[in-house]
Amino acid sequence: MALRPPALDPARLPPRSSSGYPEPFRSRVLPREKRALGDPLGLTKIGVNLTTLAPGKESSMRHYHAREDELVFVVEGEVVLRTDEGEQVLAAGTCAGFPAGSKNGHQLVNRSDRPARYLEISNRDPEDGAEYPDVDLAFRKTPDGGVLFTHKDGRPY
Amino acid sequence: MALRPPALDPARLPPRSSSGYPEPFRSRVLPREKRALGDPLGLTKIGVNLTTLAPGKESSMRHYHAREDELVFVVEGEVVLRTDEGEQVLAAGTCAGFPAGSKNGHQLVNRSDRPARYLEISNRDPEDGAEYPDVDLAFRKTPDGGVLFTHKDGRPY
Repeated sequence: MALRPPALDPARLPPRSSSGYPEPFRSRVLPREKRALGDPLGLTKIGVNLTTLAPGKESSMRHYHAREDELVFVVEGEVVLRTDEGEQVLAAGTCAGFPAGSKNGHQLVNRSDRPARYLEISNRDPEDGAEYPDVDLAFRKTPDGGVLFTHKDGRPY
Repeated sequence: MALRPPALDPARLPPRSSSGYPEPFRSRVLPREKRALGDPLGLTKIGVNLTTLAPGKESSMRHYHAREDELVFVVEGEVVLRTDEGEQVLAAGTCAGFPAGSKNGHQLVNRSDRPARYLEISNRDPEDGAEYPDVDLAFRKTPDGGVLFTHKDGRPY
């Protein structure tokens, strides 16, 4: 039987398969499916995405957030976590956490031959931004609730 | 190979098997194992527990939070979600969300014959409290970072 609010079956949510990244970064993360679980249930203080990453793809460029804690929990398959300390394989049932403001860029890469699925969990801060140590990219939230990706010097893509 | 920070294998964390509840509520939730995933990784803005609930046990008394959003995601087994709208079975891979301040009490009950495991996700607000519509119990955080359970009129247990 179909679940009704406040319960939710993520399999019934249409995935978001787009990315705000400019090229050449967009092609490194797509195809990628994100399902926002908190939004349809009215949550505003936390963000929880269930994300499916195709083989060969990256969750994001390596980055860290200014004002949002982030935790990823692998639900299915496996991904490689890349940080300043190198690489580690995260199997299903394991996790990783990144405190707001900690300048240790992270990303997940699916080097396996099947899709990987993980939860991305964070608080929500309207003044959040992100830094990307490896590429000429910067991210910030805009006053209207949108997101903006620019070059590091602020020029638009 | 053992994971190192910022990664974490929850299976390597010692579980917390206690409850701050007074009796007769404590016996309704224990045995129950909670593993805090964000704390050992330095997260302070979100709380993420991986909780294992034994057959016949309740996650909590039915409650709602004043200032913290909450989302539960079932990782293994199944639980029954109880809210004002009645009961629904949450299988592995499904979730439920409870906005801060929404006066719809919720709890999970394990009516199956095997342990259930789920993630409990929330923002962290030092002024949070909880109300319990079915029982004479109230919860609030204290200025020193602790938690206090009292009767609804404030008397200590």
